[in-house]
Amino acid sequence: MSDERAVEQVVAPRRRGRPRGRSNARDRILRAAAAEFGESGYDAATIRGVASRAGVDAALVHHYFGTKADLFAATVDVPVRPDLAVPEILAGDRDGWGEAVVRYVLEQFEKPDVRARGVVLLRTAIGNKVATPLMVGFLTRELLSRIVAALEVHDAEDAELRASLAASQIVGMLVARHVVRLPGIATASVDELVSRVGPTVQRYLTA
Amino acid sequence: MSDERAVEQVVAPRRRGRPRGRSNARDRILRAAAAEFGESGYDAATIRGVASRAGVDAALVHHYFGTKADLFAATVDVPVRPDLAVPEILAGDRDGWGEAVVRYVLEQFEKPDVRARGVVLLRTAIGNKVATPLMVGFLTRELLSRIVAALEVHDAEDAELRASLAASQIVGMLVARHVVRLPGIATASVDELVSRVGPTVQRYLTA
Repeated sequence: MSDERAVEQVVAPRRRGRPRGRSNARDRILRAAAAEFGESGYDAATIRGVASRAGVDAALVHHYFGTKADLFAATVDVPVRPDLAVPEILAGDRDGWGEAVVRYVLEQFEKPDVRARGVVLLRTAIGNKVATPLMVGFLTRELLSRIVAALEVHDAEDAELRASLAASQIVGMLVARHVVRLPGIATASVDELVSRVGPTVQRYLTA
Repeated sequence: MSDERAVEQVVAPRRRGRPRGRSNARDRILRAAAAEFGESGYDAATIRGVASRAGVDAALVHHYFGTKADLFAATVDVPVRPDLAVPEILAGDRDGWGEAVVRYVLEQFEKPDVRARGVVLLRTAIGNKVATPLMVGFLTRELLSRIVAALEVHDAEDAELRASLAASQIVGMLVARHVVRLPGIATASVDELVSRVGPTVQRYLTA
């Protein structure tokens, strides 16, 4: 697959339902961001690079979209912002992290719009070879690194493993419940899942 | 996507590297099986249906491929057979189920050939809308139902939830380690992961 087509595919959810042929500055920036993220990866992509591709000033990109993380979220149509919500949870009671994170994610996915877009994003992030490193770059830089910092563990390798194990269970739970819809987990209540999966995430993070 | 193209995509890994244009009975049966599974789903597909599509006797299908589960595994190129290995594990020490299942899966994926084919299969099963229910049908019928039976729990709904939670962590672990390659879990040793994830699976199944 060409890079261009792959990037097209990554941002496809965003485009659907929009009138074709429109091309104002906001749309131009989104297309430029798709190209910049797709070609450079999340870490190396810059707001300046996006602005230059779109032929606008960097200040305009910031004005429309905020930070690089915000711009990425808009570009790939991230339906929830764990990079913003999870650090807030981690600022709270340490013993409640596991249940709070699981509940936050599950409750977001109960909203039909979030679920629909989330399923597309999960399918794309896992199924598409170009999308995968892009999403991982975003998650690692904006989410996992903050979890690692919050853990205050001296062994950096151990902290990284803890954060990624927690992520593996959260992603596995969402995929099993909403994407592949395994019997049992697909129909369980949010409270039931919080009580079963919360302790797992807690144990990975702090035990 | 047309059904035919979708089925083509599901069985694509199997076809790659094979000489085109060959069409002996074995290949005809595999193509017929792809069509039968793709159109009927795993549960409703029958060996007779496959034989009829391929224009051969059902006995020949059994002769070449064994059971319906075996035929399915051959058709979608399943690199490991959890439907055969896990029931064997479940016949052993109940307190060791979690670690044994996690170790089995991780050790299989250490083999480069299994890993390469497993990653393609995970990507397809999660990323492809037609492949998903097919894989879920197979997993539910041939694997989860046996775990449910082994649990000997009187509450059938609870048993189903336990089995699917265990599956969610196993799939999440494989996706995080081998498909999206999250920092931490991607490079951890098998022993390390067995000691961290084993207790999770054990708790889901028996706690």
